[in-house]
Amino acid sequence: MTSADFVDMENSSCGGGPFGRVVRWLKPVPERSWGKVLEAAREAKKLGEDDLRRIVHSFKVGLALTLVSLFYYYRPLYDGFGDDAMWAVLTVVVVFEFSVGATLGKGINRMLATLLAGALAVGVHHISTLWGGEVGEPILIAFFVFVVAASVTFMRFFPALKARYDYGLLIFTLTFCLVSVSGYRETQVLDVAHKRLSTIAIGSCTSIMVCICICPVWIGVDLHNLVAGNMENLGVFMEGFGFEYFDIKGNGLSLSNQQYKSVLSSKSLEETMVNLARWEPGHGGFKFGHPWEKYLNVGSQTRQCAYKIEALNTYLNTGIQVPAEIRSEIQEPCINICTESGKALKELAAALKKMTRSSSADSHIACSKAAVESLKLLSLKRGIWKDADLLETIPSAAVASLLIEVVACVEKIAEAVHELASVAHFKTEQPQLLQEPALSEEYHVAITIDRNSTEGLPKNGSSDCITTNV
Amino acid sequence: MTSADFVDMENSSCGGGPFGRVVRWLKPVPERSWGKVLEAAREAKKLGEDDLRRIVHSFKVGLALTLVSLFYYYRPLYDGFGDDAMWAVLTVVVVFEFSVGATLGKGINRMLATLLAGALAVGVHHISTLWGGEVGEPILIAFFVFVVAASVTFMRFFPALKARYDYGLLIFTLTFCLVSVSGYRETQVLDVAHKRLSTIAIGSCTSIMVCICICPVWIGVDLHNLVAGNMENLGVFMEGFGFEYFDIKGNGLSLSNQQYKSVLSSKSLEETMVNLARWEPGHGGFKFGHPWEKYLNVGSQTRQCAYKIEALNTYLNTGIQVPAEIRSEIQEPCINICTESGKALKELAAALKKMTRSSSADSHIACSKAAVESLKLLSLKRGIWKDADLLETIPSAAVASLLIEVVACVEKIAEAVHELASVAHFKTEQPQLLQEPALSEEYHVAITIDRNSTEGLPKNGSSDCITTNV
Repeated sequence: MTSADFVDMENSSCGGGPFGRVVRWLKPVPERSWGKVLEAAREAKKLGEDDLRRIVHSFKVGLALTLVSLFYYYRPLYDGFGDDAMWAVLTVVVVFEFSVGATLGKGINRMLATLLAGALAVGVHHISTLWGGEVGEPILIAFFVFVVAASVTFMRFFPALKARYDYGLLIFTLTFCLVSVSGYRETQVLDVAHKRLSTIAIGSCTSIMVCICICPVWIGVDLHNLVAGNMENLGVFMEGFGFEYFDIKGNGLSLSNQQYKSVLSSKSLEETMVNLARWEPGHGGFKFGHPWEKYLNVGSQTRQCAYKIEALNTYLNTGIQVPAEIRSEIQEPCINICTESGKALKELAAALKKMTRSSSADSHIACSKAAVESLKLLSLKRGIWKDADLLETIPSAAVASLLIEVVACVEKIAEAVHELASVAHFKTEQPQLLQEPALSEEYHVAITIDRNSTEGLPKNGSSDCITTNV
Repeated sequence: MTSADFVDMENSSCGGGPFGRVVRWLKPVPERSWGKVLEAAREAKKLGEDDLRRIVHSFKVGLALTLVSLFYYYRPLYDGFGDDAMWAVLTVVVVFEFSVGATLGKGINRMLATLLAGALAVGVHHISTLWGGEVGEPILIAFFVFVVAASVTFMRFFPALKARYDYGLLIFTLTFCLVSVSGYRETQVLDVAHKRLSTIAIGSCTSIMVCICICPVWIGVDLHNLVAGNMENLGVFMEGFGFEYFDIKGNGLSLSNQQYKSVLSSKSLEETMVNLARWEPGHGGFKFGHPWEKYLNVGSQTRQCAYKIEALNTYLNTGIQVPAEIRSEIQEPCINICTESGKALKELAAALKKMTRSSSADSHIACSKAAVESLKLLSLKRGIWKDADLLETIPSAAVASLLIEVVACVEKIAEAVHELASVAHFKTEQPQLLQEPALSEEYHVAITIDRNSTEGLPKNGSSDCITTNV
């Protein structure tokens, strides 16, 4: 029933009197809210389906909080800490994050900062009581609070500290202020500091244990998959681009899936993930001290490649046809470049995903470089562009030039991936006969058909790439 | 004195005995630390000099904390709140952020969430005591804690809620757990909730007042300047690019300053800033409800342009000379496109910075479009490329093609800026005679010299752009 139905119904049953008007005014509101609730429920369902770990995470937070609130329910535990047990609850809420890396980072930061700041605050409290006297004590404490808060706040601007210890610096200020200030009223300042430290340690450890023991979300694995997935997305685009640009149908590849666009703005996400992944202990194939920062290099090279691909993408669907004379000359090397660099990217992504050192991408890169050379050799043939007009020539030349750039980028990506594989001691994979993915079966057919034509589609396979004869 | 000097000194004075060895082992440590301290001090000085507001911010945090800790020192205030006064200290540490928008967002989130969660927790406490009895009460409370924590945690995954209310949802969980759980031990649960709410309100308000009243940092202004600055950086690059690419000296423009690169990855920064700017009240020329989200559109179009410019940038310093025959044909329209689109971007940036609706960029865009047309008209002249070889031709054609793309991007940026100016009701500026910036004085000279030559450098000024006769 829509709100319009409601209004109709009200019109018929309540008439136009003041009561009817009030009902009409009231009724559509819950109706609209109901629609909103339904919409929110649909969105929630989608969020959960997209990543089941979100639902698991929510239950984990609920569990950790219920566990830690046991301190209140059981008298022996409560008697030990009293109201201070709430610090444990507070810590769980604040420290429990989606990934293990983030939870560990926050938990360790919080515990260490509380320890250090607590010690400093106890020291400051002693100095103030010794030197200050009744009048001077609050002035001295206020002075120290001002100085410590201002200098620690300034330290948070240091990029190196901000990346890993921002939360710790915040908690340092917090604990220092709480302990030193509350020391003015409570004589047992050491007791305050001790209770705060123990409850925070209990809260942090509960969070970390629940986070790691129940379906852990390793941000390192997510980062690894993100970087590999980004390369794969570029590879898929490149494989399809040549066919799409020269308008060759039946290759089974589609560019409707332009997932590479997310690569363009992945910089800050990758940086955050690297900072969090560093906190994680060894898991799966990743040891503690895995060279996470090398992923930034791979990611940065991938992004450089994505910028070129973004430029290439504008030449699709421009409505400008490639002139027939130019097409016959540059189509073969261009399509070779696209398929080979696309395959190279996909091989690199697959090797990275499997955590192996593989040289299978190298042959594809060699083939794409050979195609670049054959494109450049065309330069010896003067007069290719003679009969074409510039309006049509410029875009084709730009595409050719960008493709050459893409090959250079792919080479740099391969270098970055090899460096990562070497530093991370990935196991070496013996080069093996390439398995064609199921996707390219139709492509096989297209090639078989076209090999007999003069169009000159790329040779298939990795080892049989042949420099085009010109 | 380096640590090597130290070792040398120790070698000569202490000999090779065990004492000498210990001293040698100990001395370089403070020496190295001293070096690190000096380095950190230099970095701190640089951070402060880069943005003085950082130092001011640090003092503001110190001041706010000192102010709020008065609650502890003055007995009348302390008697009202007791130990709960520490919530005010805690709130200041957590809520006080660099910008007004961030502080207001966190403060309002924290106060609202505490109010709502406190009310809910008091309700839950009553239900549990009424229905649960001695045994059932903790079970009921634990059940409610689990359900509320899990569902609010899941709500934090909704992108719309995450953008503006993430902190509020966190504090909602926190307050609900604290009040409902501590209600099990304390009978005065309403008192707990009330004290928590008042102290948090005091802390938040102190932070907000100090943040706004002492040298406020408006993130809206920062966002405004960032978006305008990004356009200006692109403009500076474009103005210089034509001369650099065709290797024309003495234009007074340098490309060593490649500040446009930061535009490539500015997406997430802009999104964060827009979310924070929405919290800010009216300030300067910005009213509350200023269309901040329109800046995202301008930023996104600017980024699209930056991707093209990134592609253009790779054609500088490739070592490939533009063939003389092609150069003579395309140099004039290309340089026209560069200077005119660069000027258009700079005019747009200047108008945005001054918050005026200006049409002065439109004439530059018209000129750059005229230059594009004259470049396209060259297509009627067959055989331009006849004598050139492809290796040299491709890059020039790619540059020409990218320049055409840049003009399209600049037009879209202008549209986005005009839309922003119209929605934000910027005041209209009468088109006036253009003032050349000081930078282009040398450029004037270059043009005066070159006007008599056959090279055909761009005509200067905005109104006298002439479609090149071909």
